[in-house]
Amino acid sequence: MTLEALRAAGVWVSTTAEDIAPRLTDWRGATGGPAAALLKPASIAEVVAVVRAAGEHGVPLVPQGGRTGLVGGGLPGAEGGAWIVSLERMRAIRQVDAAGLSATVEAGVVLQALHDAAAKEGCVFPLSLGAKGSATIGGLISTNAGGVQVLRHGTMRALVLGLEAVLPDGSVLNQLGGLRKDNSGYDIKQLLIGGEGTLGIVTAATLRLVPAPAARAVAWVGLHSPAEALALLRRVRGALGEAVESFEIMPAAGLALVLRHIEGVRAPLAGAHAWHALIEVTGRGAPEAMLGEVLMAAPEVEDAVVAASDAQAAALWRLREELPEAERRDGGAIKNDVSIAVADLPAFYEAVVAVMAGAFPTLRVMAFGHLGDGNLHLNFRAPEGVDDRAWVEANRVPVRRVLHDLIADWGGSISAEHGIGTLKAAELARLGDPGKLAAMRAVKAALDPKGIMNPGKILV
Amino acid sequence: MTLEALRAAGVWVSTTAEDIAPRLTDWRGATGGPAAALLKPASIAEVVAVVRAAGEHGVPLVPQGGRTGLVGGGLPGAEGGAWIVSLERMRAIRQVDAAGLSATVEAGVVLQALHDAAAKEGCVFPLSLGAKGSATIGGLISTNAGGVQVLRHGTMRALVLGLEAVLPDGSVLNQLGGLRKDNSGYDIKQLLIGGEGTLGIVTAATLRLVPAPAARAVAWVGLHSPAEALALLRRVRGALGEAVESFEIMPAAGLALVLRHIEGVRAPLAGAHAWHALIEVTGRGAPEAMLGEVLMAAPEVEDAVVAASDAQAAALWRLREELPEAERRDGGAIKNDVSIAVADLPAFYEAVVAVMAGAFPTLRVMAFGHLGDGNLHLNFRAPEGVDDRAWVEANRVPVRRVLHDLIADWGGSISAEHGIGTLKAAELARLGDPGKLAAMRAVKAALDPKGIMNPGKILV
Repeated sequence: MTLEALRAAGVWVSTTAEDIAPRLTDWRGATGGPAAALLKPASIAEVVAVVRAAGEHGVPLVPQGGRTGLVGGGLPGAEGGAWIVSLERMRAIRQVDAAGLSATVEAGVVLQALHDAAAKEGCVFPLSLGAKGSATIGGLISTNAGGVQVLRHGTMRALVLGLEAVLPDGSVLNQLGGLRKDNSGYDIKQLLIGGEGTLGIVTAATLRLVPAPAARAVAWVGLHSPAEALALLRRVRGALGEAVESFEIMPAAGLALVLRHIEGVRAPLAGAHAWHALIEVTGRGAPEAMLGEVLMAAPEVEDAVVAASDAQAAALWRLREELPEAERRDGGAIKNDVSIAVADLPAFYEAVVAVMAGAFPTLRVMAFGHLGDGNLHLNFRAPEGVDDRAWVEANRVPVRRVLHDLIADWGGSISAEHGIGTLKAAELARLGDPGKLAAMRAVKAALDPKGIMNPGKILV
Repeated sequence: MTLEALRAAGVWVSTTAEDIAPRLTDWRGATGGPAAALLKPASIAEVVAVVRAAGEHGVPLVPQGGRTGLVGGGLPGAEGGAWIVSLERMRAIRQVDAAGLSATVEAGVVLQALHDAAAKEGCVFPLSLGAKGSATIGGLISTNAGGVQVLRHGTMRALVLGLEAVLPDGSVLNQLGGLRKDNSGYDIKQLLIGGEGTLGIVTAATLRLVPAPAARAVAWVGLHSPAEALALLRRVRGALGEAVESFEIMPAAGLALVLRHIEGVRAPLAGAHAWHALIEVTGRGAPEAMLGEVLMAAPEVEDAVVAASDAQAAALWRLREELPEAERRDGGAIKNDVSIAVADLPAFYEAVVAVMAGAFPTLRVMAFGHLGDGNLHLNFRAPEGVDDRAWVEANRVPVRRVLHDLIADWGGSISAEHGIGTLKAAELARLGDPGKLAAMRAVKAALDPKGIMNPGKILV
């Protein structure tokens, strides 16, 4: 089928620059290569028709969700001629099953919409991140998204019970449904989760829900360093166990950026602290009291506040969730998303600061993230007074190289939750485990022999 | 390399019938085809040498753990000439990290040994099953084992943080380490988990631990039917949430078998009940009191006892864990392991009883299993007074066909936790999702083009 034939068959197709241009950039302002068309299939049958047509004509397909990715995975590559496949018209929430604790939704559903639908049934979909108003389920699955509740509930991979996807040859992986256990052969859907659209297009999923917590407590803590934060994490988990839902950290400079650039926020504590932790605990009984008690007795805590209302809790969370936006408004940065064994995180952070100070003496380090997952977002800023765009452009490659070499030495990952996309593909090829890379290439060639699915992403 | 060369290189090799014969049968008494040799590599380098040698000579390799599998996955096939590769000499527990809540162990470690090592550090490896004294970590990973704590902690897949394996071409997948998040490309290790040794040999893993619970409560409940058991499950989870670790059910006939065949056990309740549930709850505070309160107020409960000591709790668990052994001693059965959406389980069970009564009027149904996971072990026994071995032999294929057709109609799985092996390979080919099967075949051909890894298992 040609584009004309797809259009005649009822598929939404546009080839105008007006429609296509906005799809060539993403949230972080990156720009992709040119695209020949934008397609918005409204059903799995239409997705199958699109994939088959692309296969016939050797057209690259670029599946697109909310364009909130951070590694270029949702943008066309330089090869040109791509069809962008937006799943935005597949946005039905097919079922929310409160008794069975699952929801079946289409790929184009925005995360916030799923949160709202689950809340109406007294449930929670336990994955949240700053981009929840734009990010779609299909994109969140394809990138195995993390966010602020991984500590307790795991990444997207742990939340996908069933999956429906169109594979590169146009066949359908039909694994929807809420089976909690299924050992009937290789778990192929795991390849689509985190596959960044290079092995197929996710069209729908059955996701795990959890009961809405009886109560929650959110605290903001001032403390001295990541090492103290880790000690506090262990103390809080030791006392409250799996009730600890989130444990985020950010430095004073991060809080300052949010206070400078985001409207309607205010500093949660009176004094100044080198580091801050945001902790959420849920559970029966009185989690505020339990959390407050632990914090009162913790020698690591310089000062702390426990939210006294939902509005206060939301205000504390806003300080954390708006940090990427505040950073973006403040100027360019070389952004990184790394992970390390949790116990190693404080020492690794010290090593980063030392190594970077040696290699790039004027560079400014901004580190924040999900301490409980060993996941740091390490963003490197231009020296004070230097034009940040030019600096980022000039230093991106050597700075990342130094960081990634350090990560490799420490046995960490160069991408904890953002994925590889185009941004880190060369570094993955350079530093990835050779056995894993060879297996990845073999799987890609086997499932997508024509190389039409999101070419240039992950594997180069 | 030949066998001689492997032996000269230090690999443990035997070609004697005395050594090989015991490796050709498994726990359920099934017998595999002939094997040319038994090899016991003691290091990953030796496993690599064995896999390369097999590749050179086109020799089928059969990885073997504790031979407690139930679908023939660990036995050589009829093709002959296989090398059985036992991982039993790779049984080091390399690290138990209580602070980081992880353990790194070799494939040959027996589950009970990991339980013991974790307990010494105040932790729990939250996967347990009746065969824990023999089943090995490599086998548990390769079959994505389930067991009695899946309700809370998930199957083996949810517990594997990192994996080391030798792929069919002799390359090494080097993904050990306790990263909680790693989105650097396809998660290839997921193919090895539940791959039943057909895509490589697992040599070691980093596994998730959980803190030892402060306290636990175990209850035995008599009730009327699976529908009442489901209502009780929802009630208990509604009241106690994720503290509910296990929720198992068995019928009166199951308890009777255990009382008849297992020494030193006794009936937990004074009266007779059509069905029984075994519930375990862990947590802070007083879980016995909380569980007792919920059970007292539950109209589904006919009678119940909450264990007053660890010894009593162990005695209740023994009634459940010895059921497969009691069944085996009582005679042959056509064993099945199916799953269904949790909410559908009671109605599905009624359908099974009705359909089987129609198709095989004298067959006896024994159903037990993991209600909270939607997982029933459905074992069909010969009519009273009929020779069970002959009956099983004659009826295995048609009985399973009827059951599997019913499962397919209900959107369930023909293998919830036991895997496919040789036993269910033909039925998977007949009833599996065509898109998934095609992708599985493509992956197998890509990673194991010579077809040396555990041939005849899963895919036929």
